[in-house]
Amino acid sequence: MIHPIPPGTRDVLPDEMRELRRLNRLLIDVFEEAGYGEVSTPAIEYDEVISRGERPQSASHYRFFDENGDLLALRSDMTVPIARLVATRFADAPKPLRLCYLASAYRAVTPQRGEMREFVQAGIELIGARGADGTAEVIGVLEAALDAAGLDRTVIGLGHADLYRNLLTEFGVDGEARDAVLGRLATHDLVGLEAELSEAGIGAAATEACVALSQLRGGAEVLERAREIGGDAIERTTTRLQRTYEKLVESGTADRVQIDFGLLRDLGYYSGAIFEVYDPALGHILGGGGRYDGFLAKFGPDLPAAGFSLYLERVHVAQMEEEARRAERTAS
Amino acid sequence: MIHPIPPGTRDVLPDEMRELRRLNRLLIDVFEEAGYGEVSTPAIEYDEVISRGERPQSASHYRFFDENGDLLALRSDMTVPIARLVATRFADAPKPLRLCYLASAYRAVTPQRGEMREFVQAGIELIGARGADGTAEVIGVLEAALDAAGLDRTVIGLGHADLYRNLLTEFGVDGEARDAVLGRLATHDLVGLEAELSEAGIGAAATEACVALSQLRGGAEVLERAREIGGDAIERTTTRLQRTYEKLVESGTADRVQIDFGLLRDLGYYSGAIFEVYDPALGHILGGGGRYDGFLAKFGPDLPAAGFSLYLERVHVAQMEEEARRAERTAS
Repeated sequence: MIHPIPPGTRDVLPDEMRELRRLNRLLIDVFEEAGYGEVSTPAIEYDEVISRGERPQSASHYRFFDENGDLLALRSDMTVPIARLVATRFADAPKPLRLCYLASAYRAVTPQRGEMREFVQAGIELIGARGADGTAEVIGVLEAALDAAGLDRTVIGLGHADLYRNLLTEFGVDGEARDAVLGRLATHDLVGLEAELSEAGIGAAATEACVALSQLRGGAEVLERAREIGGDAIERTTTRLQRTYEKLVESGTADRVQIDFGLLRDLGYYSGAIFEVYDPALGHILGGGGRYDGFLAKFGPDLPAAGFSLYLERVHVAQMEEEARRAERTAS
Repeated sequence: MIHPIPPGTRDVLPDEMRELRRLNRLLIDVFEEAGYGEVSTPAIEYDEVISRGERPQSASHYRFFDENGDLLALRSDMTVPIARLVATRFADAPKPLRLCYLASAYRAVTPQRGEMREFVQAGIELIGARGADGTAEVIGVLEAALDAAGLDRTVIGLGHADLYRNLLTEFGVDGEARDAVLGRLATHDLVGLEAELSEAGIGAAATEACVALSQLRGGAEVLERAREIGGDAIERTTTRLQRTYEKLVESGTADRVQIDFGLLRDLGYYSGAIFEVYDPALGHILGGGGRYDGFLAKFGPDLPAAGFSLYLERVHVAQMEEEARRAERTAS
């Protein structure tokens, strides 16, 4: 007899589960080795907490009432609960704070698009470390995690959350028109991007600049090419990206990093450097993160912060692909 | 700033989390060593599945609608999802099946009474092994888990789910009157028990028999004392308990086991032998289990089954108590 489970959820059978447990352990070991202590928070929170951390228009989490009529919600990531935890339990702890997690999160999604309703995330949060130093530390831990998982070919794209917001403001594009452009950028929809920019009424040169910028990715050399496009917004962002990139080179963790001026993350709380992990063998991103300075002020003291999370299941699929590739190479 | 979390949920900070991870690993290792493969299922299921496994009157799980208007529910234990999984994914697998889990479950509780709204359970399910042999195997794994956790002083109470149901039928007590008596038995409320029995109109001798029986606990000798109370229902149950107990003695796993004629588990699906783990140092039970023959037929083939689950947090508290006690003895 078949009893279906909700789309976007899954059962894991013993063979896969053993591998997932091994991967869990390996990631937690890497995080702890780097000084990050694991925390766990309830999957069920008051809706007031979860909503406080979300963009007003998203509301993509599950909600229900408890026996007292209080509105509860399932967490949709771990950054919001950890921001709540830091304000509540670590207000007086010495900073920076280094916390990590391995936990399920839940989103009301469109499973037809292959989105997961329930998924496991493994990640870290570095609370109270500002700027390029903090960002480089977080990316360094991410690299160590990818190394430990044997994902040699993964690439970390490094971009900046404020780039297009600032650039569009410079071009005089605001409000809904700006959101429409940002939407096209986030989905890498070049044709739609040009259409939205022309609709916003900015000139051909500005449109061209915006499109050209979104195509720039590579090593340190793309910083110069971005600067050649010109303008204040680009100059400011490029300077900040350069500082982070130089830190990474200094600490020997820039090998996998590709500067990506086309990067735009979906979550609302990022403020500075942002990054995503791609695996060339897979269509999906494996995870991502960035700075979210200003976000913790929603819950308590305004501490600078950065972090990342990896989708455990996707990392596992990438591991299997990688193992298959290695086996093939050994055989041939 | 304090942001409350729902009563009956908790945050776990790094020191405790490290210990919980260690305990997790240790329990899963014991289960796998015994041949039980870990599975994972979604925390969110269709309500139809969760409700199918519950007693009609309980409905103590959280429910909410998804984007298509389908009613979803948070699982309230792992036995129901595993029954669903066995019917769906293991219908043709050779039996017995040995599965284990370590997972969060959710109940709409009365947190004022100290009940947990979210809790982690570690347990096993043995599917397709009948009678005393199956029960003894499950109790053997439970003992190995308690040993590995260093809980030398825990006691496993062994009883029978059908004892009082059958006994009351023998006494002509049925329906609501029977449920009222069973309720008093489950909460070990002796005064209430006598009152309900007298209300049900059974004679003084039957009342005395029932009360005396509920007080019987100990080694093999209590089987004889139960038989002396007399009656068919007691005779049948005692014979079955004896068979299980003898199996445990045979396999060298009876040391911790105390036959307990007063035992009655809260969950509706138990059918034969039932057991609970007590720690003398703690007020709570640490977990329990039993046979649930007949339960799997709600989802697919009617396979005999038995299992147990431990409350991870309570096992951890018991471990800490035990360590403190050992440290004290070493110091004195």
